[in-house]
Amino acid sequence: MSQILKKYDLDHLAIATVASHTALQILRGAKKYGFRTIAVARGEETARFYRQFSFIDEVWTADFSNFRKAAEKLASSNAVLIPHGSYVEYVGWRQALEAPVPTLGCRELLRWEADQFKKMSLLEKAGIPIPKVYRSAEEAEGPVIVKLFGAKGGRGYFVARNREELARKLASVSEPYIVQEYLFGVPAYYHYFASPVYSRVEIFGADIRYESNVDGRTFGWAEPTFVVVGNLPLVLRESLLPRIQDYGERFAKAVEEMVGCRMAGPYCLESIIKDDMSIVVFEFSGRIVAGTNIYMGYGSPYSVLYFDRPMDMGERIAHEIREAAKSGKLEHLFT
Amino acid sequence: MSQILKKYDLDHLAIATVASHTALQILRGAKKYGFRTIAVARGEETARFYRQFSFIDEVWTADFSNFRKAAEKLASSNAVLIPHGSYVEYVGWRQALEAPVPTLGCRELLRWEADQFKKMSLLEKAGIPIPKVYRSAEEAEGPVIVKLFGAKGGRGYFVARNREELARKLASVSEPYIVQEYLFGVPAYYHYFASPVYSRVEIFGADIRYESNVDGRTFGWAEPTFVVVGNLPLVLRESLLPRIQDYGERFAKAVEEMVGCRMAGPYCLESIIKDDMSIVVFEFSGRIVAGTNIYMGYGSPYSVLYFDRPMDMGERIAHEIREAAKSGKLEHLFT
Amino acid sequence: MSQILKKYDLDHLAIATVASHTALQILRGAKKYGFRTIAVARGEETARFYRQFSFIDEVWTADFSNFRKAAEKLASSNAVLIPHGSYVEYVGWRQALEAPVPTLGCRELLRWEADQFKKMSLLEKAGIPIPKVYRSAEEAEGPVIVKLFGAKGGRGYFVARNREELARKLASVSEPYIVQEYLFGVPAYYHYFASPVYSRVEIFGADIRYESNVDGRTFGWAEPTFVVVGNLPLVLRESLLPRIQDYGERFAKAVEEMVGCRMAGPYCLESIIKDDMSIVVFEFSGRIVAGTNIYMGYGSPYSVLYFDRPMDMGERIAHEIREAAKSGKLEHLFT
Repeated sequence: MSQILKKYDLDHLAIATVASHTALQILRGAKKYGFRTIAVARGEETARFYRQFSFIDEVWTADFSNFRKAAEKLASSNAVLIPHGSYVEYVGWRQALEAPVPTLGCRELLRWEADQFKKMSLLEKAGIPIPKVYRSAEEAEGPVIVKLFGAKGGRGYFVARNREELARKLASVSEPYIVQEYLFGVPAYYHYFASPVYSRVEIFGADIRYESNVDGRTFGWAEPTFVVVGNLPLVLRESLLPRIQDYGERFAKAVEEMVGCRMAGPYCLESIIKDDMSIVVFEFSGRIVAGTNIYMGYGSPYSVLYFDRPMDMGERIAHEIREAAKSGKLEHLFT
Repeated sequence: MSQILKKYDLDHLAIATVASHTALQILRGAKKYGFRTIAVARGEETARFYRQFSFIDEVWTADFSNFRKAAEKLASSNAVLIPHGSYVEYVGWRQALEAPVPTLGCRELLRWEADQFKKMSLLEKAGIPIPKVYRSAEEAEGPVIVKLFGAKGGRGYFVARNREELARKLASVSEPYIVQEYLFGVPAYYHYFASPVYSRVEIFGADIRYESNVDGRTFGWAEPTFVVVGNLPLVLRESLLPRIQDYGERFAKAVEEMVGCRMAGPYCLESIIKDDMSIVVFEFSGRIVAGTNIYMGYGSPYSVLYFDRPMDMGERIAHEIREAAKSGKLEHLFT
Repeated sequence: MSQILKKYDLDHLAIATVASHTALQILRGAKKYGFRTIAVARGEETARFYRQFSFIDEVWTADFSNFRKAAEKLASSNAVLIPHGSYVEYVGWRQALEAPVPTLGCRELLRWEADQFKKMSLLEKAGIPIPKVYRSAEEAEGPVIVKLFGAKGGRGYFVARNREELARKLASVSEPYIVQEYLFGVPAYYHYFASPVYSRVEIFGADIRYESNVDGRTFGWAEPTFVVVGNLPLVLRESLLPRIQDYGERFAKAVEEMVGCRMAGPYCLESIIKDDMSIVVFEFSGRIVAGTNIYMGYGSPYSVLYFDRPMDMGERIAHEIREAAKSGKLEHLFT
């Protein structure tokens, strides 16, 4: 990547992302910091939606099944790419690993995220508490949650109260899956920002996912489903913050040691907080999560701990890229 | 209305509203944009509450059973009226239709909102998915929600799991009602702003209603009730936004075609998002909803997509009126 | 206290608090208003977390079992102390009553808060609706909630559906406790600010506590627990605000009459809103609550009703202290 980056004109960088997920805050933040902005859309209908916003300089459409072409065009446009969940979903992790365009963060982490068991092992090696993982229905004890490997945005999750119910429900499943201990507690998602410029991990925010139908009023009349349709803002009990920061730092360190590249930019740990105040992390995302959308435009409550005004994650990313470009650290952001 | 408006001194407009619902943000926004501000209260006790705020220039009390008098006084005070749910509730839709004061938005829409069946037909004609509507218990299949015609703020709603329970519960109901399919999913309310000045429909925000007792912890020990007591902020999965905007635009178009007047100012579509990501709209409001209160003072995350800083709905309204006054488009706002 | 305060150099006041709970917003707000800032931590690990933030000038560690020493050091550092729930928990109310350092608010109120029955009597005397209180299982009717006297942050609460379940659950309890009627409705916590400078009580904000496991998805598979792990922002139906303000003012008046000192600074009433829109207050806090953390950095929606920009509670406190220092009213804040 550093070869491509070396040819870039750093005074005229463009920030690009795929038109979905967190594109609005990413591109708005980029424009606020003076970058050119590019949205890459999957189809004309989506492109039309993004075209109405004046902070987006260019809206392209691209064939995501052959992303190399779009990536090359981005590179020749002096653009860096901010990856997010929809990008990975659209192009697939294999294409994302090889896209010839500078991409924010630790790209190699994608390989680990493609396998639920490998993913959990990374957390475990970081010394972060994780739920019990079962490889089969026979091993399971008590309530469990099952996640199909191809699960996206919560679709493909289901719960079972006990081994019998689990066995019955698994009977109709043909895809690979992971069975986890079902934790009683409340969900909480922590947003971090790993900053090579300031050599620190920042706690940036926290959200709760808003999931259909489990967060609706079903009165027990419908089987619970977990499809993410939005996000709700959350602030954490302040006495939890030192531990949450510690977990964020441990994660970044484990990535460096196990995956071999330095965390840079946003990432997320996804947890249950139990009623003994323990935090159990059942998932992570190696890049920006949609939960950061809750702060678009006015910034997060935690961002003011590090900066003199609230910032949203789009602005935070743009700030980092601008400062890195100024101080010759840009290659630390795109690995 | 345009006759009244023609006599107005556009350099000294006052913005008035009824002292309840969203009056605080409306009047604060108006004052911020330099308008004189008037709150019209139902009684002295309410008036006293609003009098403590320096951004409200005048707090009147009025007899809402004979609103014509207050409306005439507003007109002679060079004031435009921002209608909201409490205004319609206090004066009734018949008086609201005829109040001799310029009133933001499409007034004739009130007639459609007074009849739940007509209301749903407008959504249907807009091509927006709606729940199945049943005219009697015999027609109903599966779980349903019943809304009495006079239901206000969620009071007068109840659910029934099946036809038998529905029949039993309806036995004690004497008012007109509508029976709708009960949808499993999560509630989401979308705030729009129809702008004649910029010739566009803006997605402004989204909220969840906080309803007593259904959002409390009842452990199934109490019959669910749906009385709105507050609102919670929500951001939506970004991939839903193009569709949500499309529905907002379809609605505005249907109003123009069916009702015969142009949407202007805030309105709201009220939906369930199902776990297949489909959106079913079960209600609308033709004017500002209380859900916009979540943004008072700091603005909505979506407002920054259109403007260079966050705005709340009160400011958005004041901005539109100011720009319309400048550019001679004021009569498009008050129809 | 006024003796200590008289010796202070008012041009170089420091604002101090215990490093937990709401310390981040308190100290950030203080720094924004030009005060020196001091965090007093319980241990080195916590201290390290707070040291990373540049808005905190000094981070001390202290022995909270003997708080007098730290209090004297604060006094000799020209510092005033902002008390919060963790402070009271760490030092205990007896030490807090006698700490020789100016402490924001009505200190004597701590004595009333140490006894759940006395606490409820203060609300009752204020004329604020409270739940039925039972002194024994035999008196109880219908569903109840039990709070152990030593309950902190929701730990030590449990519910029982009826007298039989209550008796069974109480059998294993050896601490003192209070049994309250369990109210169906939604929880809502109101933040107030009593301002000696402006001679008024301000409605500052509202939140919902996020409690593990009761706000999680337990599907009835686990016994409900109520441990607070975070807070969610809430705006209230505007028609409830006059009553909520009235209750806040009644409370301040009752404190003055019963406890004998004037409210100053933040406090909180903790309620259930029932589906008949009645508000029943089951708890209060005589000082800042963690729910105000939801506004850190960008301010509360209600703060703009009193000031021309949003403020968070940390800034509000700093603003009051600065204005009081200017106008010679500082001793009204520290009683």
